[in-house]
Amino acid sequence: MLKTGIIGGSGLTGRELIKILLKHGGACPSIVTSRASAGKKVSDVFPEFNTLTDLEFTDPADSSIFSAADFFFVCLPHTDAMEFVKKAHARGKKVVDLSADYRMRNTATYEKFYKTKHKYPELLKKAAYGLPELFRDEIKGSVIAANAGCHASCTILGAAPAVKKMQVEYVISDSKTGVSGAGMKPVAGSMYININENNTPYNVGFKHRHAPEITEVLKRSTGKSVKLILTPQLIPVDRGMLATIYIKLKKSVTLEKAKKAYCDFYAGEPFVRFPENISMRNVQNTNFIDIKVEDSGRKDILLVIAAFDNLLKGASGNAVQNMNLMMGFEETQGLL
Amino acid sequence: MLKTGIIGGSGLTGRELIKILLKHGGACPSIVTSRASAGKKVSDVFPEFNTLTDLEFTDPADSSIFSAADFFFVCLPHTDAMEFVKKAHARGKKVVDLSADYRMRNTATYEKFYKTKHKYPELLKKAAYGLPELFRDEIKGSVIAANAGCHASCTILGAAPAVKKMQVEYVISDSKTGVSGAGMKPVAGSMYININENNTPYNVGFKHRHAPEITEVLKRSTGKSVKLILTPQLIPVDRGMLATIYIKLKKSVTLEKAKKAYCDFYAGEPFVRFPENISMRNVQNTNFIDIKVEDSGRKDILLVIAAFDNLLKGASGNAVQNMNLMMGFEETQGLL
Amino acid sequence: MLKTGIIGGSGLTGRELIKILLKHGGACPSIVTSRASAGKKVSDVFPEFNTLTDLEFTDPADSSIFSAADFFFVCLPHTDAMEFVKKAHARGKKVVDLSADYRMRNTATYEKFYKTKHKYPELLKKAAYGLPELFRDEIKGSVIAANAGCHASCTILGAAPAVKKMQVEYVISDSKTGVSGAGMKPVAGSMYININENNTPYNVGFKHRHAPEITEVLKRSTGKSVKLILTPQLIPVDRGMLATIYIKLKKSVTLEKAKKAYCDFYAGEPFVRFPENISMRNVQNTNFIDIKVEDSGRKDILLVIAAFDNLLKGASGNAVQNMNLMMGFEETQGLL
Amino acid sequence: MLKTGIIGGSGLTGRELIKILLKHGGACPSIVTSRASAGKKVSDVFPEFNTLTDLEFTDPADSSIFSAADFFFVCLPHTDAMEFVKKAHARGKKVVDLSADYRMRNTATYEKFYKTKHKYPELLKKAAYGLPELFRDEIKGSVIAANAGCHASCTILGAAPAVKKMQVEYVISDSKTGVSGAGMKPVAGSMYININENNTPYNVGFKHRHAPEITEVLKRSTGKSVKLILTPQLIPVDRGMLATIYIKLKKSVTLEKAKKAYCDFYAGEPFVRFPENISMRNVQNTNFIDIKVEDSGRKDILLVIAAFDNLLKGASGNAVQNMNLMMGFEETQGLL
Repeated sequence: MLKTGIIGGSGLTGRELIKILLKHGGACPSIVTSRASAGKKVSDVFPEFNTLTDLEFTDPADSSIFSAADFFFVCLPHTDAMEFVKKAHARGKKVVDLSADYRMRNTATYEKFYKTKHKYPELLKKAAYGLPELFRDEIKGSVIAANAGCHASCTILGAAPAVKKMQVEYVISDSKTGVSGAGMKPVAGSMYININENNTPYNVGFKHRHAPEITEVLKRSTGKSVKLILTPQLIPVDRGMLATIYIKLKKSVTLEKAKKAYCDFYAGEPFVRFPENISMRNVQNTNFIDIKVEDSGRKDILLVIAAFDNLLKGASGNAVQNMNLMMGFEETQGLL
Repeated sequence: MLKTGIIGGSGLTGRELIKILLKHGGACPSIVTSRASAGKKVSDVFPEFNTLTDLEFTDPADSSIFSAADFFFVCLPHTDAMEFVKKAHARGKKVVDLSADYRMRNTATYEKFYKTKHKYPELLKKAAYGLPELFRDEIKGSVIAANAGCHASCTILGAAPAVKKMQVEYVISDSKTGVSGAGMKPVAGSMYININENNTPYNVGFKHRHAPEITEVLKRSTGKSVKLILTPQLIPVDRGMLATIYIKLKKSVTLEKAKKAYCDFYAGEPFVRFPENISMRNVQNTNFIDIKVEDSGRKDILLVIAAFDNLLKGASGNAVQNMNLMMGFEETQGLL
Repeated sequence: MLKTGIIGGSGLTGRELIKILLKHGGACPSIVTSRASAGKKVSDVFPEFNTLTDLEFTDPADSSIFSAADFFFVCLPHTDAMEFVKKAHARGKKVVDLSADYRMRNTATYEKFYKTKHKYPELLKKAAYGLPELFRDEIKGSVIAANAGCHASCTILGAAPAVKKMQVEYVISDSKTGVSGAGMKPVAGSMYININENNTPYNVGFKHRHAPEITEVLKRSTGKSVKLILTPQLIPVDRGMLATIYIKLKKSVTLEKAKKAYCDFYAGEPFVRFPENISMRNVQNTNFIDIKVEDSGRKDILLVIAAFDNLLKGASGNAVQNMNLMMGFEETQGLL
Repeated sequence: MLKTGIIGGSGLTGRELIKILLKHGGACPSIVTSRASAGKKVSDVFPEFNTLTDLEFTDPADSSIFSAADFFFVCLPHTDAMEFVKKAHARGKKVVDLSADYRMRNTATYEKFYKTKHKYPELLKKAAYGLPELFRDEIKGSVIAANAGCHASCTILGAAPAVKKMQVEYVISDSKTGVSGAGMKPVAGSMYININENNTPYNVGFKHRHAPEITEVLKRSTGKSVKLILTPQLIPVDRGMLATIYIKLKKSVTLEKAKKAYCDFYAGEPFVRFPENISMRNVQNTNFIDIKVEDSGRKDILLVIAAFDNLLKGASGNAVQNMNLMMGFEETQGLL
């Protein structure tokens, strides 16, 4: 049984990781850290784990952390994650980092969007971008997987086949997310009275931190540059993400060819589905991404809809998928 | 006091009309018809009117309808509305028709999208398109106002300034709507367990009936043709509509000029606002449309966000605004 | 036009007061204070007021407050309210206090539940309990009306006829409230991810601060003591309160007699309704309280359901009703 | 691998059964019937099963049903279930019946509340009441388990320890349920616009069909009669049930003794928890029932809060728990 550590595990991604790892079979959570909740039982903070685990939160300053686990999931805020990954790597531990710190190789972009200098640029080269559908082989051989951002992976997976196989001018992604994407911190924007019965776009255009992640990763994965407009939007649901993606083509493609290109691109992928009907509900609490290529009414614009659970395929489920690849488990273990 | 009749008034638009007219001051609801609820008290069907009105639903076949009111709001399904408007017009009564029957002048398009032949094409020419911000003078002098569709008016008002003043190649509108847009009929798609925690695009591309309404009306109002992709989407809210509209320009425009163009276009409009922050909540239960011109990150694509209450500015509030114009009331009466 | 001041007006009750007073006709908001938002426009904090008012929030320390208005609504936290009411009273201003500071005459109970000493017990005697259905005459002649608490007024109005006219052993009230009852402060318990898809009882038994308010006020109004169990519960709605109240009778009463007793008790009340169907929806955004006396299946237990909008009849609507009485307006002005 | 059949499996309880059985390990769904969806793929009706199962819905009239499975879950409406259970029993098949047809032994009560005559009273004696915490041994040896109703099992499990060990005068249960309890049929009462932002009590007093089920089963299980008031209520959540239960005692009991009595009563139960905090969220998507004994403020009234997922411990999860007992699996298999 692989002993895993969840660093900064008292948030929503930590909670999902615990849930998955308790049932994984090949890996288990052996240590979960939290500065704020150190000493408390996991089941006191997340009562749904009552009777299911006796784990307690450990202080992240505790020196025993690295001896307690052989694989780490890092759920720390960015820059904190940067340090932990460095330390874990120095001790020969493999990690999946759910923060943004090792996602982008362009440190200038990182510094512009995250307002902090990247201290370990040499480590960036060792970090695979943790999106198995596009970087599977790289992830298998890597010691660090930088787990993809939620808006990023939804739009990347929705656009990649077109960008790779067609001539794309630009991509517009209208990306609706559930509120869990904002985490557990009590801020005005996450309060019920501000979310319920509402729909709010935020950081639109090219302002959201996942925007440069999308363009860099699409370039890295397909070799082609694309322009992007990203319109993240909050809607009143707990979990789920659905992006309507408009892909402007320099050269028109028929709907049939486009559909075939997408199916071929993802042939054999265990977590990519092409359903007749697409909606958030169908993917909630699963690790699937559903993709539908729609008739936009115009041959030069492809309308692609992509949907997944932002906490699973968009975060913790994808993180375990990465771990499975890095540690030689069946890729789908614990995720079906 | 102007006596008004609400025909087919037991649905959601009827309910809003009753609410507005009970407080209007210059007009009042004197007859409300409903086939299904004939003979019942309005307050039995809509309990919130308990103690506020003694009105009963009248059978629409009742011959007294035309003598009971001097102005009519038609909330019938399309084709039924077509007939009623014809009859009311023959009796010299002015009407606001909330159905789609008199919105489009191109009967071929009407017949294609509504699967029925238009029986009174000559009456179409007498019908103003009931969107005061674009057709105020026409509405003032008309006997029939074809109240704009909800997705239609939101996208039309969000795109019109650009289409009029700039060189627009095409418009993509990602139009999120609350569930009340689907009415009160119990169908699977309107059930709580299918709507809650969900987000569902429907009739995407150029399939929704409001798509040809948008292109025809933009042409009629600005003299220019534009291509359109419309992506209607259900989100789990009662009421409200918010469209993120991407307007591709043939010739780039700076954000400042675009903002000024929009402000100038709607100068003096009592129900158009340009707020700093835009969201559904700010317009719910009001007749305002909020519009925000955003930086898309690209000079050749304008990102415009438009939001209103689909049952008010998108339906019954706008209908009363039309009535106010047609009957010489202050345009904002009963609506602030 | 009566100039009113709203002290501590940047919260949810202030927002509702502004909305009502902008349309009241006889009174208007002339000053609104807020420590946190001083200097900001009201419409910047509450964007729905955009174009409807130019009011700015004034610092509560501003010495001009008392000259700016002739009547005050106090929306401060308890103890802060205690001081402001004292000052306003000293200047001869009438006030409606929406805090709990002047509701209970038993200062020992106040101090036990609010963890603070009451500094102005002599002023308590001048304060009417601001629930017009039970204390109308007193309110008319008073200079201070202590606006009733939300759980308190719902259960009091639901139980008072039985307590007054029958022999009641005890009252159990299962009181469901929307989230707006918790205000706008960003705390964990008010976050979307903790409220949505949830139902949480809190401060059950006799722990909630409104519990002793209910028993004291029922005693003051009916002359009789009753025992109480109060079970406040959060449900995922914005606004609304619905209490299922079980009233144990020492002497059985038939359903018909009970219904008649309730109707007689509230005969002529403009805001009390006895509908066939009762639900939160029917009272939202109104100042009505709906009451239904149900067949509990047992003659010795009366089942009464009471529902109102916690921000209107349960707070700001009721506050304006009190102002109307104190200032000689029609009681329903601005509230229908 | 035990082959199971799900009869009437295109509803919400069928969907949950499929979900559980696909992961159970010892049992699998080998046939699922549906009149309306016969011939369709299960994953077309429930898209979340896409790629997870190739099952198709079989017509219930198909003669092969009984050869296709060795154990049956009956999700038919009452009276239809009555017949199917009879037939399955005649063929020697064990069944869990999720309808109400075999729950109550008093056929007069059954006929009064379900408006139909019970045709197989002799079979009633062979049916165990399918609530393992109270009837485990009986279920183990039975060929028919009548799966408990949702409001029924929540209130029964919440009240049974008190009824058994103390002297109970009557029980009042205020039982809040999510909307999934009403099934998938499109009716007005289940529409989003009627449920959202609402709270509605229904069939209050002793009118709900689960009321006589509760009193009969409490009698059968504890040997004592109690009076009951049941107040079912709809709140706007998908799934979950939380009952606040007021238990009037003839002889007072201290809180400590009451808590101990409850813990002792359910000692060793794998699905009963006594958490510090109780809410719907903590039990959603689990088979647990959380119970909290609260201080009501009065020694003669016990306040017990019980919460579970109405589709799992309140329906399909409990049904699999029954199957596990009847077929010799580990009781918790597939349910943790």
